[in-house]
Amino acid sequence: MKIIGVDPGTIVTGFGIIEYNNKEVKFIDAGIIKTPAVKALAPRIEKIYDELNRLIKLHDPDEFAIETAFYGKNIQSTMKIGYARGVAMLAAVHNKINIAEYSPREIKKSVVGKGAASKEQVQFMINKLLQLNKIKMKFDETDALAVAVCHAFKSSSASHKSGSWEKFIKANPDKVII
Amino acid sequence: MKIIGVDPGTIVTGFGIIEYNNKEVKFIDAGIIKTPAVKALAPRIEKIYDELNRLIKLHDPDEFAIETAFYGKNIQSTMKIGYARGVAMLAAVHNKINIAEYSPREIKKSVVGKGAASKEQVQFMINKLLQLNKIKMKFDETDALAVAVCHAFKSSSASHKSGSWEKFIKANPDKVII
Repeated sequence: MKIIGVDPGTIVTGFGIIEYNNKEVKFIDAGIIKTPAVKALAPRIEKIYDELNRLIKLHDPDEFAIETAFYGKNIQSTMKIGYARGVAMLAAVHNKINIAEYSPREIKKSVVGKGAASKEQVQFMINKLLQLNKIKMKFDETDALAVAVCHAFKSSSASHKSGSWEKFIKANPDKVII
Repeated sequence: MKIIGVDPGTIVTGFGIIEYNNKEVKFIDAGIIKTPAVKALAPRIEKIYDELNRLIKLHDPDEFAIETAFYGKNIQSTMKIGYARGVAMLAAVHNKINIAEYSPREIKKSVVGKGAASKEQVQFMINKLLQLNKIKMKFDETDALAVAVCHAFKSSSASHKSGSWEKFIKANPDKVII
C-alpha cells in the first residue's frame, strides 16, 4: 500500500510518500510545496492543489493521510489553514483516494510513542524508521512522512477513513452481501 | 461585465450571477449548492468546487466576488468556512477569473446603505435592484447576489482585485509599457 502524507499550510505544505507492506515502511519521496510569496491567497491555494494533484498522478498512492487542523490561538491563521486543507483534500477526492485524518497528538504518539514529542524527536524517529540516514530533511517533510507512517501503523483499523466505498469494497470483497 | 457572487458555507453555498452594464445591474441566475449530508468533509468540498466550476463554465463570468470570512466565535466552524472558501476560490482560479473579496459589512453598506443591515433588508434591496418581484429567493441566494451587486458598484476601483494580470493587461492595453 502506498501512502501520501500531507502537512498543509498556506506558506509551506509538506508531503511525504511511503510504501507499507508486511508491517514495514519504506521511503519513496518527500518534499515541500512552497507557495508564491504574494498577499493574495488565490495563487497559493492553486499551487497547493495543482502540485498535490501532480504528485498524486505521478505516484498513484492508495491512501491520503492529512494532519487535522491545529486549532491555534489566531482565528485568521486558522481560516488560512482551512484553505490549505480544503484544497489539499480536494486533490485527493478528485483522484478518488481515501482520506484519513490524524491529530498532531495521534501522529506523535504513533511515531514517537508520546503525544507531546518535539519536531526533533519526530524527525529522529522518521529518519530511523525510514532509514534516511544520508538524506537531510526539513521538518515540513518529516512531519508529512510522520502522517503517512502514522496512517500505515493505524491502517488495520478502518475507523479513520472517509472517502470511497468502492475501494473498501474492492479490498474487502468478502464483506459484500450480494 | 458578468459577475458571479458567492456566499460560501460547507452546508449551503449560495451563488448569484448578474450582468453589469452602464451602471445597471441585471439578474441572470441564482441558486444554492447543497452539500451531501454526511459527516466527512471531502464529499462536501468536492460538491462546492465541482458545482461552481460547472456554473463558471456555463455562464462564463468575467469576475468572481466572494464574501470574506466571518470570523465567528467558534474556531471549528471558522476552519470549515475556510475549506468552503478555499475550494470556491480555487474554482475561480482554475477558470482564470479575477477574485474580489468583500466583508459582510462592505456588502451591506454597498447594497442597503448601512453596514449593520439585516438579511431581510438585504433581500428587500436585492429584489428591488434586480427587479425580482415575482421570484421567491432564499437568503443564501440574495446574499450571494448582494456580493455580486456590491462588486458591480465597486468595480470602478481595482483595489479589491486579486488574480490574473492577463485580464487586467487585456482590459488596459494602454497601461502596458513595451
